[in-house]
Amino acid sequence: MLKRYLPILTWLPHYTRRLAGADLLAGVIVTVMVIPQSLAYALLAGLPAVVGLYASILPLLAYTLLGTSRTLAVGPVAIIALMTGAALSGVATPGSPEYVQAALVLSLLSGLMLTVMGLLRLGFFANFLSHPVIAGFLSASAVLIAASQAAHLLGIASSGFTALELVTSLAAHLDQVHWPTLVIGLFCLAFLVGMRQVGERAFLAMGMPRGLASLLTRTGPVIAVIVTTLLSWQLQLAGRGVAVVGDIPGGLPPLTLPSLELPLWRALLVPALLISVVGFVESISMAQMLAAKRRERISPNQELVGLGGANVVAAFSGGMPVTGGLSRTVINFESGARTPMAGLFAALGIGAVTLAMTPLLEHLPIATLAATITVSILTLVDIPLLRQTWRYSRSDFSAMAVTIVLTLVEGVEAGIISGVLLSIALFLYRTSRPHSVLVGRIEGTEHFRSVERHETETVSHVAMLRVDESLYFANARYLEDTLYALVANRPEVEHVVLICSAVNLIDASALESLDAINARLQDSSVTLHLAEVKGPVMDRLKHSDFLDDLTGRVFLSTYAAWKELKKPRDTSA
Amino acid sequence: MLKRYLPILTWLPHYTRRLAGADLLAGVIVTVMVIPQSLAYALLAGLPAVVGLYASILPLLAYTLLGTSRTLAVGPVAIIALMTGAALSGVATPGSPEYVQAALVLSLLSGLMLTVMGLLRLGFFANFLSHPVIAGFLSASAVLIAASQAAHLLGIASSGFTALELVTSLAAHLDQVHWPTLVIGLFCLAFLVGMRQVGERAFLAMGMPRGLASLLTRTGPVIAVIVTTLLSWQLQLAGRGVAVVGDIPGGLPPLTLPSLELPLWRALLVPALLISVVGFVESISMAQMLAAKRRERISPNQELVGLGGANVVAAFSGGMPVTGGLSRTVINFESGARTPMAGLFAALGIGAVTLAMTPLLEHLPIATLAATITVSILTLVDIPLLRQTWRYSRSDFSAMAVTIVLTLVEGVEAGIISGVLLSIALFLYRTSRPHSVLVGRIEGTEHFRSVERHETETVSHVAMLRVDESLYFANARYLEDTLYALVANRPEVEHVVLICSAVNLIDASALESLDAINARLQDSSVTLHLAEVKGPVMDRLKHSDFLDDLTGRVFLSTYAAWKELKKPRDTSA
Repeated sequence: MLKRYLPILTWLPHYTRRLAGADLLAGVIVTVMVIPQSLAYALLAGLPAVVGLYASILPLLAYTLLGTSRTLAVGPVAIIALMTGAALSGVATPGSPEYVQAALVLSLLSGLMLTVMGLLRLGFFANFLSHPVIAGFLSASAVLIAASQAAHLLGIASSGFTALELVTSLAAHLDQVHWPTLVIGLFCLAFLVGMRQVGERAFLAMGMPRGLASLLTRTGPVIAVIVTTLLSWQLQLAGRGVAVVGDIPGGLPPLTLPSLELPLWRALLVPALLISVVGFVESISMAQMLAAKRRERISPNQELVGLGGANVVAAFSGGMPVTGGLSRTVINFESGARTPMAGLFAALGIGAVTLAMTPLLEHLPIATLAATITVSILTLVDIPLLRQTWRYSRSDFSAMAVTIVLTLVEGVEAGIISGVLLSIALFLYRTSRPHSVLVGRIEGTEHFRSVERHETETVSHVAMLRVDESLYFANARYLEDTLYALVANRPEVEHVVLICSAVNLIDASALESLDAINARLQDSSVTLHLAEVKGPVMDRLKHSDFLDDLTGRVFLSTYAAWKELKKPRDTSA
Repeated sequence: MLKRYLPILTWLPHYTRRLAGADLLAGVIVTVMVIPQSLAYALLAGLPAVVGLYASILPLLAYTLLGTSRTLAVGPVAIIALMTGAALSGVATPGSPEYVQAALVLSLLSGLMLTVMGLLRLGFFANFLSHPVIAGFLSASAVLIAASQAAHLLGIASSGFTALELVTSLAAHLDQVHWPTLVIGLFCLAFLVGMRQVGERAFLAMGMPRGLASLLTRTGPVIAVIVTTLLSWQLQLAGRGVAVVGDIPGGLPPLTLPSLELPLWRALLVPALLISVVGFVESISMAQMLAAKRRERISPNQELVGLGGANVVAAFSGGMPVTGGLSRTVINFESGARTPMAGLFAALGIGAVTLAMTPLLEHLPIATLAATITVSILTLVDIPLLRQTWRYSRSDFSAMAVTIVLTLVEGVEAGIISGVLLSIALFLYRTSRPHSVLVGRIEGTEHFRSVERHETETVSHVAMLRVDESLYFANARYLEDTLYALVANRPEVEHVVLICSAVNLIDASALESLDAINARLQDSSVTLHLAEVKGPVMDRLKHSDFLDDLTGRVFLSTYAAWKELKKPRDTSA
């Protein structure tokens, strides 16, 4: 019981020096690698850079205690940072103390929601975010994030959270381009893209093992940070108008108390819910993929608790909303992390940096961070998937397209909510007009298929109809229409067999319709039979009067119905 | 084409004197019978009694031109009147000119919505009101209406639109009971209940034909109106404090122009939508039942246009929202109406009454109308259905219970919206955790059923799993979990056959999961096969790369898969 809620107890007793060695190495590598992105994502959310560091310390400890994934690395991530910025700018002015305060409330709310969802075992909620909606949302968000970083690369002021706002704001300030900043930004962009494109192949060609090559490729941002910081310091670029990170207060994360103002909580309720769900989806996808690779198991509901705990801790230690991050987790995994202890070591490492080494970051140009964000985020734009989805399914494509368009035009919340609602509506619409076919016997077998698609054997006085959907309120009336039309168009029919192999549920509305159909067919001297009714559906029917009133029989298989009914009525009378 | 939008053209050319005779008789009977209820429902909505008459004249003409049901009778009905009252009291003070004006806007909005839904062929929307939700809503509304009429029966002032408001308001005024009013009310109640309970049997015993007996039984309200009006006039009851209908302005319906104020339109948008949908559901259910009795056909989408037209006309002729009414339609049908011309005759009749005979209604006690409403409405309370639904399905029952409770506590809109949303949520939840079973062959047949419920033949290296649900985003992850658990628990399995007889759709999310499952099973040297994939699903899969990547085969039937795979791998190698 205790182990279920404190997964650390399952692995800590078996912890060995060997594991500790691997975890320590991974912790050190993660420390170095995630500092640039932690700073960058805090800036993306409109928060002081140091908030990104704070959010990468104590929240990691909480996840180490509560999480079930061995290699997930928690911290600020790009999408959540973007959503945080959009949410906060609705309630406070970026740069103001209220803005930073609201970030704590957002973390706390999101943390509480995640924890409650986990304790109530509501992890399945995340399933309602379909793949096309997630993919569309990620692509559109990546474009938004890139647009928001463009201002930093150009060294101009710009603001906004929708594509329109960002583009007009950029256009309005385009005459103020700061050339030294742009040069740094372009240099970093080119370097980072180069590392991604040719780095790994080059290292492999130099004879390095694949793991090390892949890891070295990922040092791109660290190298860019070091080189541009040194340049900026030597050339005193800050004095020439290049925006730099500036003075970061050193010291351990402060103890912060999130505000308890009700209006603020209410205003952040929906954003917090969306941040929770999106963060959870990103995190759980990552964790499941890695668990599969190492044949480990994770518990989605306990993951909710783990991420919830991390966010609650973030709220009390000057942080911002966090989740399991894509790139930091890959770094952790590839650096050889074996247990969540690696997260603890990384937390200690980042804590040490925050305590003593923030002056080193003073001269780091913002443009470097913007380039880092832009390059990592643009890999999320997945154009081929759009084409694939269009080919496969128009309704999946439309959900994706609506998500993309509304995310760009109206913002991240509108995008994701519309995508989810449209997916559900399309699914319901589909099930409300079920596919149904008359089937016949495939000669020489006991197998029955569509008379239109296959060569089949039929008799004219028996209509065998397979309805390809559960029967429930949304299609109950449609079922009636289908059957009445069938009987009206074929006056020679004496028996109707409703094949229920695809009927997984008959709800009370559909039961009433079946009752009506049975009575109405009886008026026309047509007998209604059922076939292949599944166990759970049959159990349910036995609790109603329908089976007593049914004019025909319930056959175990379509073949049994066929054998019995194919003789004409006069011989059986 | 023209016939589709003006169904009158389909029957008018074939109209005969014989049909005219039948329709005229029905028209006269309907005129007499519906006057009391038209007045009563206007009062129920908080409107002047005459509005009920106006709404029973020109709207009938519109439906005669546009409707497809031969016997549906349109006019004010109880549920819609209650919903109208609830909606209007939110935007104006009952009794004020603004209140009457708002009723016109509500009719216009509702009429436009119905017409647009009809033209866009959105009639299927009404299917999302499940039977349990409708039944729960009707039962709870009946209780609300009865509670609102209790004040009129007791002769006290009372107001409110939720159960709590009504009961507290009644209790607060209970010391002001007006005894003469109560006596009239109780007399009418007793008489009307008596007529319903024993009337028809008594008339039949007197040797009358069934149709006439049934019709005479329905004259109860007319008799009650005539008797109490005469009494009230003779005894000058109005002078003794009995509330009467009072002075009704004579004359034809006025030409009214609904207000075009945007805030008013916006405030009435949701109520108008609900009134449209609920009215449509009541009307279409009635129309379909009667069409079935006479083997006629109605077109749901054209019905929307017909009802829409009736409401638009009501808005311009001093009326209130109307729909096809339960009791007035039954009267029309049983009086022998053959075509919508009966509606025209009834409209002329009611028009004549409104023009010249309103002074006769001056002394009619309100308590008589309240008794009429109470008796007719309480037949909608269906207690046995609650028990039946509980027995049949807990989720249908919970949707019903929530609808009832919220309708009583929060009002009609909250009740119906929560009922619909809960039904949809429960359906989605169900489909997100699909039932799946391992199946085996029923010996000597080609039929495969659950290994737990039936005596079946299986081989240990082949797992045949039937998933009883379409595969879509909400259950894609669940499918992965199920299959991974299956393979993990049974290491001897070499082949997994996914039986898709109940899979009516594989969306893009599920396709991605199937891809992942295929790859992951391949890692464990397990081959994934599909069987019984339906035509439309297969068509879709051919537009993806899945079939190329699939490690196993797609079998036409489960039996074909069984025949092929039951030999152990080493013999086939």
